[in-house]
Amino acid sequence: MTLLLSSALVTPGFANDSANKSVVFTEKEMQTAAWIRDAARADNMSYKILESLTTEVGPRMAGSPGDARAVAWAEAKFKELGFDKVWKEPVTFPAWKRGVEKAEITAPFQQPLVITALGNTVATPDQGITAELVEFASLKEMMLAPSERIRGKIVFINHKMQSSNEYGLVVPGRSKGASEAARKGAVAIVIRSVGTDSHRFPHTGVMTYDADVAQIPAAAMSNSDADMVARMIKRGKPVSLKLEISASAAGSYTSYNVIGEMTGTELPNEYVLIGGHLDSWDLGTGAIDDGAGCAITMAAAEFIKRNGIKPKRSIRVVLFANEEQGLFGGKAYLAAHQTQISKIQAAAEADLGQGPVTKMASFVRAEALPLVKQMHTVLAPLGIEPGDNNAFPGPDMGDLRMAGAASFGLALKADDYFNLHHTPDDTFDKIEPARINQAATTYAVFAWMAAQAPISFGSGVELLKASK
Amino acid sequence: MTLLLSSALVTPGFANDSANKSVVFTEKEMQTAAWIRDAARADNMSYKILESLTTEVGPRMAGSPGDARAVAWAEAKFKELGFDKVWKEPVTFPAWKRGVEKAEITAPFQQPLVITALGNTVATPDQGITAELVEFASLKEMMLAPSERIRGKIVFINHKMQSSNEYGLVVPGRSKGASEAARKGAVAIVIRSVGTDSHRFPHTGVMTYDADVAQIPAAAMSNSDADMVARMIKRGKPVSLKLEISASAAGSYTSYNVIGEMTGTELPNEYVLIGGHLDSWDLGTGAIDDGAGCAITMAAAEFIKRNGIKPKRSIRVVLFANEEQGLFGGKAYLAAHQTQISKIQAAAEADLGQGPVTKMASFVRAEALPLVKQMHTVLAPLGIEPGDNNAFPGPDMGDLRMAGAASFGLALKADDYFNLHHTPDDTFDKIEPARINQAATTYAVFAWMAAQAPISFGSGVELLKASK
Ligand SMILES: [Zn+2]
Ligand SMILES: [Zn+2]
Ligand SMILES: [Zn+2]
Ligand SMILES: [Zn+2]
Repeated sequence: MTLLLSSALVTPGFANDSANKSVVFTEKEMQTAAWIRDAARADNMSYKILESLTTEVGPRMAGSPGDARAVAWAEAKFKELGFDKVWKEPVTFPAWKRGVEKAEITAPFQQPLVITALGNTVATPDQGITAELVEFASLKEMMLAPSERIRGKIVFINHKMQSSNEYGLVVPGRSKGASEAARKGAVAIVIRSVGTDSHRFPHTGVMTYDADVAQIPAAAMSNSDADMVARMIKRGKPVSLKLEISASAAGSYTSYNVIGEMTGTELPNEYVLIGGHLDSWDLGTGAIDDGAGCAITMAAAEFIKRNGIKPKRSIRVVLFANEEQGLFGGKAYLAAHQTQISKIQAAAEADLGQGPVTKMASFVRAEALPLVKQMHTVLAPLGIEPGDNNAFPGPDMGDLRMAGAASFGLALKADDYFNLHHTPDDTFDKIEPARINQAATTYAVFAWMAAQAPISFGSGVELLKASK
Repeated sequence: MTLLLSSALVTPGFANDSANKSVVFTEKEMQTAAWIRDAARADNMSYKILESLTTEVGPRMAGSPGDARAVAWAEAKFKELGFDKVWKEPVTFPAWKRGVEKAEITAPFQQPLVITALGNTVATPDQGITAELVEFASLKEMMLAPSERIRGKIVFINHKMQSSNEYGLVVPGRSKGASEAARKGAVAIVIRSVGTDSHRFPHTGVMTYDADVAQIPAAAMSNSDADMVARMIKRGKPVSLKLEISASAAGSYTSYNVIGEMTGTELPNEYVLIGGHLDSWDLGTGAIDDGAGCAITMAAAEFIKRNGIKPKRSIRVVLFANEEQGLFGGKAYLAAHQTQISKIQAAAEADLGQGPVTKMASFVRAEALPLVKQMHTVLAPLGIEPGDNNAFPGPDMGDLRMAGAASFGLALKADDYFNLHHTPDDTFDKIEPARINQAATTYAVFAWMAAQAPISFGSGVELLKASK
């Protein structure tokens, strides 16, 4: 394959960055990009990498023993895959430990519930908390209710997520519900899981406490249990819940963003930034969240390297530490690299499952839009629609974009993502080779073209202004 | 509705049982049966009854506190539904208690597994059992293997159930695997769950020990975990499992078959026997197994009563105790009624989920076959195919049939049954009103016509012989 491509690699003279001059990929570059698209479709490296991560590491909650094993795995895997440079950058955060998590309805009908503690929650007293449940259809409804209805009770936010588009709508009940409930005197909060499935799995996820109110325990029950509890409440008699949580803060922990780079030929200090987050929740093995994102982007860079199609700029794959509990890896990356935002040719994270990619949005200066159009021409046969020029590159790269990094949004199809998200059911057997491979192929084409582009995609204040 | 039917209820003179004379349902009886079929389709009593059982009782493993609550619920519900007679018959069995159940792979890659103890298993020592796994594709393959491969190890039976037809093929690994493994020196057994889903739920179920070998602990892991463990084993290095089970025998327990009867007008001592089993496994709330069977048959009889369409014979609904751990309720029923097998006009249990009914088989004497044909004529518009005359009436009625009770097999569609069977996911939210209502409608038509039939469907040695 390397030989086959050698002619394509005789690139024309490097076109210097020149404003207001229409610059485009050469015909040979377009052919190389199309070759990557077609050849990578028959590859299965992303599937293999994810198989390795989920089998050899499995759950890797930030700050847990699995976190350290995942960092070691990532370093070794980058090296095994032939990345030119492999290194780690420290990420320090407060760790949180899961413990016992049990709940049962004690009256009027005794029944155990399937629940999980929300990340960052405090514990209940050892004997648990037993109190009457008070149900609300949403966080908003709870916030409008008088404190008298809530004081001394356990708030039950029964907000059903109807489709994958509703994550943003429903998730505040998980992330902010405890403090809002505490403000009205609640002794604990349990929510309907934020997820689209109807299985008896609870969905975990992070929550945070406001500084000005009491910290009360927070847990999520499965959708099946929420249905049942709602049926009990409908009968009109008081429904009591006993909640036992022994989670705890576990001190400061230092993990790592693990980074692998394929060095560019002409502008090695400029780079295309791709990646996912290496940490996962602990209930499953983090296959779709976000082993898939790690595997897709590692495989994309590896495919380019393996086939000897070196682009001008470098391709950097960052596996971010602790995304789940507060974007700590992304923040650490920004802090370590904020004086070099202009070195980032384009940033794009994969963190919405196994693919396929359905749309490509950009966030580049106007002069680069013809190049984006050419990139889309190559990708369109994969079923990818064109997007706008106001892309969001993903959670760990969001702050980079706000700091002016050129970005791409390679939208992953998420129709089934929130069935599995943050549950025990997020395991490798859910991965379909054709889906993840389409995503890896897309990232390979994107990364190579962005790294090979004749001009910078822009950065900084100028880019932020222009995009308004 | 009662008024509407009053004309149909003016039945012609009772046709006495007369061998070799072709006896058929009258036109009015056929009209009444068709009316039941059409009117019951708009009913939703079975759905309501199941909602009540799963919400107000939930898990009801034989011998657990839920068992007693279920018995109380059933008695009260029969009365509430207007059954003419409601009573209980004692069923005594050895109880078994679930305790801690934990497993993790300790080498070469540390990962927790999602497992459950199999019903009736002994415990591990407090510190657990840690040993190398030895994998077999089936119980049969394990039985053919030399003891040297197995001695001192934990047997892993990785037999994947591919479709709902394979339950009988795969389940011996669960029920008999422990003793067969112990015979070859294994220290424990873990099986791939017997189920067709690919979720991270373990499927429990009963196992038994042979008297002549050591009793070793037995557990099942989810299909997702079995996939993962198999991937680890494929890497060729020894894979070690740590298993902790604290289940225990819990002495003798007396539960009850709970029985409700609608009394017949002319032959009240003869009866159509329908029902399901009241006990469930403890992981879910026993919606499809077998709350559905209880609800379907209770609703069928209740519909007939509510509409004043009294048949000649009685309709008896039996909710059997402890089917799951060894058909104890069915055996007790046979023991209590074995001298009156001839009083059973027809027996049919519902224990394969929420419906719909797809086929009707019979086990009746030849003279009654024209009546069966008429019954099928009424039921055919519900999508029910005719079956043979060698029906099996269901697990708790199997021994009655072997003792010569006329039987019907109303086959329930089980395509998704073994996704949920014996898992935490067996909950009410999986029930579709149209499906369960079709089954209740079918049972209502069947029960009424069988109870109204002009002749006996036969019984005893004569019936058993004739069916050969
Ligand atoms: Zn994620
Ligand atoms: Zn996540
Ligand atoms: Zn059953
Ligand atoms: Zn069962």
